[in-house]
Amino acid sequence: MSEQATEPLLVERDGAVATVTLNRPESLNSLDTALKEALRDALGELERDRSVRAVVLAGAGRAFCVGQDLREHVATLETGTTDPLGTVVAHYNPIAARLAGLPKPVVAAVRGVAAGAGASLALLADFRIGGPKTTFLMAFAKVGLAGDTGVSWSLPRLVGHAKAIELLMLAEPVPAAEAQRLGLLTRLLDDDELVLPVAQELAAQLAAGPTVAYGAIKRQLSVGDAGTLADALAAEAQAQTICGATADHRNATAAFVAKEKPTFEGR
Amino acid sequence: MSEQATEPLLVERDGAVATVTLNRPESLNSLDTALKEALRDALGELERDRSVRAVVLAGAGRAFCVGQDLREHVATLETGTTDPLGTVVAHYNPIAARLAGLPKPVVAAVRGVAAGAGASLALLADFRIGGPKTTFLMAFAKVGLAGDTGVSWSLPRLVGHAKAIELLMLAEPVPAAEAQRLGLLTRLLDDDELVLPVAQELAAQLAAGPTVAYGAIKRQLSVGDAGTLADALAAEAQAQTICGATADHRNATAAFVAKEKPTFEGR
Amino acid sequence: MSEQATEPLLVERDGAVATVTLNRPESLNSLDTALKEALRDALGELERDRSVRAVVLAGAGRAFCVGQDLREHVATLETGTTDPLGTVVAHYNPIAARLAGLPKPVVAAVRGVAAGAGASLALLADFRIGGPKTTFLMAFAKVGLAGDTGVSWSLPRLVGHAKAIELLMLAEPVPAAEAQRLGLLTRLLDDDELVLPVAQELAAQLAAGPTVAYGAIKRQLSVGDAGTLADALAAEAQAQTICGATADHRNATAAFVAKEKPTFEGR
Repeated sequence: MSEQATEPLLVERDGAVATVTLNRPESLNSLDTALKEALRDALGELERDRSVRAVVLAGAGRAFCVGQDLREHVATLETGTTDPLGTVVAHYNPIAARLAGLPKPVVAAVRGVAAGAGASLALLADFRIGGPKTTFLMAFAKVGLAGDTGVSWSLPRLVGHAKAIELLMLAEPVPAAEAQRLGLLTRLLDDDELVLPVAQELAAQLAAGPTVAYGAIKRQLSVGDAGTLADALAAEAQAQTICGATADHRNATAAFVAKEKPTFEGR
Repeated sequence: MSEQATEPLLVERDGAVATVTLNRPESLNSLDTALKEALRDALGELERDRSVRAVVLAGAGRAFCVGQDLREHVATLETGTTDPLGTVVAHYNPIAARLAGLPKPVVAAVRGVAAGAGASLALLADFRIGGPKTTFLMAFAKVGLAGDTGVSWSLPRLVGHAKAIELLMLAEPVPAAEAQRLGLLTRLLDDDELVLPVAQELAAQLAAGPTVAYGAIKRQLSVGDAGTLADALAAEAQAQTICGATADHRNATAAFVAKEKPTFEGR
Repeated sequence: MSEQATEPLLVERDGAVATVTLNRPESLNSLDTALKEALRDALGELERDRSVRAVVLAGAGRAFCVGQDLREHVATLETGTTDPLGTVVAHYNPIAARLAGLPKPVVAAVRGVAAGAGASLALLADFRIGGPKTTFLMAFAKVGLAGDTGVSWSLPRLVGHAKAIELLMLAEPVPAAEAQRLGLLTRLLDDDELVLPVAQELAAQLAAGPTVAYGAIKRQLSVGDAGTLADALAAEAQAQTICGATADHRNATAAFVAKEKPTFEGR
């Protein structure tokens, strides 16, 4: 990657919380190759870094992320490669897999527009905080495409199958209040300037929690919400064996019986 | 099949929209063998006919469809065949598979009652338009049966597992407003006479859209809403490869960058 | 098991309805080994007893069930066994599998608190009746654990994936009105004293219905809501073959055509 005056992705630490900021505000954080590769690699590092116990995903400027950089994509189409959507396998799929698979809570600070793959990124977070200007747009069909970056998995889980078809086919903007009603937003604030700080506050709260259990909850729900009860019970047994061996479980149980407030160290 | 003065199923074309009408109004469009076979075959033809880019499913007269023709069924029971429900494999399953699998948008114009397999048909459409007299009735348990025609797949996707159990076990009518609240209706109009024209208007809008992408969206949601994220990502990559190779994608992307309105030709 | 002045689990019959009562009110019906084993065994017997056509699950005293007996669990942790969560495989998983798999309707009378595995038990019922003091608490993370007793399967089916993550990670109490809005309660009454009688009334109504069809509906939804449409259609064909061979189906169909009220005998 070439050197840049401004990095397309910022990763900042505050205690056990890492804030990942899509940083191309001049193009509403559209996803070009450099940003996609930086995000893919940063998610890999955040997974391995056990000192990070919660992640905030945000966009610089007035939008969260408008999705694929279409100017770059038009250039790709003009080169006439056989698979102009190769970026799905090269970038979007690994980004989606790593984001959904992060074994720690992820909070999206969805200030402004989240469109196309940008909406998909927000939907893979565990919590989504929005403000009055938050707007989701499943824009894919506008340019003759189906959904990507995991939206065919996340969207029906959040809003149901019928609404998922409607949002993807009609590709109309979903304003903030409707987004909250449908379950696209966990929490809708009345001030866009509060979206990032409230997301970071929630992340800080979660970063002080039982990190191993949070990771296990994410994994078990991935199995449970789309498998048989037998699959879910097997995953639950495995999850509780792992969590049951943590110091956090032992300490919190002792604190509970002693009617004291537990302290979690994330291990 | 015997010759009939009136066909049990009508298929009418208006541009790229085909309207399929269950046409046994004297029995509230109950499904006898002739109608089931006509519907099964018509859906096969609609799948193959690439000039059809959207489908409306409607019922003639004051009901959408009350489901199985029970007089015919009683006659079957009286013949004492070993599997009186053989019509599930012969008719309902292929109808459900073809209806859900149509690679183009389907809009159900649900005027009046949709009961039993008639409700199942409506639930397999991508959009459901209703009016004040629209009523859903998961009637199966009333005659000692479980659900069929795909309702065990569609219903929990639309209303959730708990509500699906409740609707199928209690078998109580769901009036229009409740149907909209639960997500059984995409849109509730205030005049039953508008149900069909509004459904056809929505179908015409969709018929002018990116047909290949719409088909891909339906397929990818079928995978994504019940599979693992890895399954969904693989389906998304395949979907985008197919859509990315269409003229519609190329033209719409160019139009977007030029800030022009795209035209979709369905290929 | 040692003899006890008071049994930890009561099973009472009224006609075709069995009421199963968690009976450790002095500890808010927390689940110790004796109660878990009694519940596991009772569910096996209720499955086999064809004279039972509906089940009510209730708690004695002011709570439904607060989940695992943590004092007993602390003792287990102190013995230093390699898998302190062995109770998941030994007790919670068989209880969950049997409860969800009962081929007859189950109504939970959720009076007061349902926490941890106690909440999980309620969520595996087909219907949940609550009152003003009903509170759900997905308490697992409070003691550093993920969910168990099937909650990773039931919860996303009832409230969606996003809300399931939120409830399990934040582990905050869900009061009655919110529980109803989310779909955790089928019905919210305005008097806690009515919760049990109304649950028993609903169970009596269901016990007079087509029991074989109810069992088939539960099985087919377990397949349909997490499988492909093809899986669902195969399960539906099997379900209708079984139900179609019952006297209940034959009699109800004849009654319907004769415009009479059907009587169901559960076979």
